Amino acid sequence: MDLYEVIIQELERTPGATIFIHKSPDGDALGSALTLAMALEARGKEAEIYCWDAVPYFYRFLPGWEKVKRVRQENKVFFYPLVVGLDSSDLGRLPFLEGRPPGKVVNIDHHPTNTRWGDLNLVEPGAAATGEIIFRLLEKWGLEITPEMATCLYTAIFTDTGGFRFSNTTEASLLYCHRLVKLGASPYEVATHVYESYSPGRMRLLGLALNTLSMAAEGGVAWIVVTREMMEATGTGPEDTEEFVNFPKSIRGVEVALLFRETESGVKVSFRSKGKVNVALIAASLGGGGHKAAAGCDMELPLEDAIKRVVPLVEETLACCTSSTFS
Amino acid sequence: MDLYEVIIQELERTPGATIFIHKSPDGDALGSALTLAMALEARGKEAEIYCWDAVPYFYRFLPGWEKVKRVRQENKVFFYPLVVGLDSSDLGRLPFLEGRPPGKVVNIDHHPTNTRWGDLNLVEPGAAATGEIIFRLLEKWGLEITPEMATCLYTAIFTDTGGFRFSNTTEASLLYCHRLVKLGASPYEVATHVYESYSPGRMRLLGLALNTLSMAAEGGVAWIVVTREMMEATGTGPEDTEEFVNFPKSIRGVEVALLFRETESGVKVSFRSKGKVNVALIAASLGGGGHKAAAGCDMELPLEDAIKRVVPLVEETLACCTSSTFS
Repeated sequence: MDLYEVIIQELERTPGATIFIHKSPDGDALGSALTLAMALEARGKEAEIYCWDAVPYFYRFLPGWEKVKRVRQENKVFFYPLVVGLDSSDLGRLPFLEGRPPGKVVNIDHHPTNTRWGDLNLVEPGAAATGEIIFRLLEKWGLEITPEMATCLYTAIFTDTGGFRFSNTTEASLLYCHRLVKLGASPYEVATHVYESYSPGRMRLLGLALNTLSMAAEGGVAWIVVTREMMEATGTGPEDTEEFVNFPKSIRGVEVALLFRETESGVKVSFRSKGKVNVALIAASLGGGGHKAAAGCDMELPLEDAIKRVVPLVEETLACCTSSTFS
Repeated sequence: MDLYEVIIQELERTPGATIFIHKSPDGDALGSALTLAMALEARGKEAEIYCWDAVPYFYRFLPGWEKVKRVRQENKVFFYPLVVGLDSSDLGRLPFLEGRPPGKVVNIDHHPTNTRWGDLNLVEPGAAATGEIIFRLLEKWGLEITPEMATCLYTAIFTDTGGFRFSNTTEASLLYCHRLVKLGASPYEVATHVYESYSPGRMRLLGLALNTLSMAAEGGVAWIVVTREMMEATGTGPEDTEEFVNFPKSIRGVEVALLFRETESGVKVSFRSKGKVNVALIAASLGGGGHKAAAGCDMELPLEDAIKRVVPLVEETLACCTSSTFS
């Protein structure tokens, strides 16, 4: 019996499941969780979804989004005998509140760095999104994929591939999305909600941030800055800077792009790499973490000092690895 | 015999074809033309591709792009007995130089406004891109789709759907792209070339343009401005403002977005609509044209006067059509 079948058996056996998704929930975590909850309900079971943070406003079109409960607000969690954690590489990303949850724990994820923290670990690094694994699970379960589920799963795959623009996009991702559109997902509706629901303040903040564009290493490194003053002037918050780092990254010749954002206590640095530099290592050396191509760290330093510390480090690393590309 | 078969017969019969694509060539025009030329060459035939303008730098990764000749530079055109115009709704978009070309003229396009200007008109408004029609043509022709062709056709569909974000994206578009990736196209490579090859000047210009963000009609209309001074300060040209109008469009609540760009003789206005307003009508009333959702016009007015003329017109139109949505 393969792992899918084992998990389906557990799902069939339990009266209900408590589903957890990671902090700062994204389209993949939300889309996967909402679909799994709908599947359980279709089988006459209960399902609860918990997250540490609120659902971002641009995901509030997903069918059932209002069912996602905030651990911070609830201050308690109702545990069914089966607990499923989705799209979460380690327990630190999950809001269990008090260590390991009771009951059987299923870990479904696509991050290669997943620490196999569950009793059952369905981890498939080849999947572009956890949503692809949920799609396969529903198929093997023999459940009908409703238009609502299709919208959720399409959003999961569409957003985790950056709209089919990141290097994790495979021909399977496109085939899944083709099938999900056939099942009722609307590419335009999803794209409009996710990428065309910005606030005017965010656009103004982007303008101010782009005015700070700086480059080093003969154009190999580019960065922009978001200060607290800019956020105040535009009435924006940290969530409005999401994807800003992709703008310096979109310049030709840039290998590493950085976003420096002032926080209450210092600076949050976001790193993006086009392939030559493993930015996870740089971020880790500064107390942060992430993936080879996308990482971040927090620094308790004034903005100028953080830039002076990070940029030379990136320049040095780039100088060492101009000949090879990680896969 | 269906139209595809008739055209294949013509392609098989001729010793070569002269292929024309529209001014300001985009990914669909280029990808379709390069693929058709490769197909003809695979059948032992000659093929020439002509365009009025140069290939934009971010499309210079397409296999064979350097074969695209500029009519403006050549100042003459070599006509084979068969002439194929691609992705061009009317003859005004094509650089034939002196009226109708000699020989049989084939018109392959997906624009619903196509004027059927050819002897044979393969016009399919249901296709998201002309590239989809070329894909079907190759299949019916029984030709092998090489990895180079797959890259060209993937780029055609990917760019004409705005990276699967526009309302023309269908489940068929996703299925074609899935198949093209199987045949050798790389989604990441295409996306990186098309959307991550910008100049630093373009990013600076975007910052300056976003600083001009203005709104009217209670947030239903948003516009940004690009002056000649901004372009001089950032060392950029008109081609660097492509897609800028999508930034005001990406604000929630905005129904019509505008870009006002200063030209030598006045202002070029770009219009985008999310669905309620038919901007082609507004642009046409100002001497321009386009589609319901994307249109433009040139105005021989100072920038401030152009804004004062256009914005109230858009506001009025929006006020009249807040209840219905065009399909």
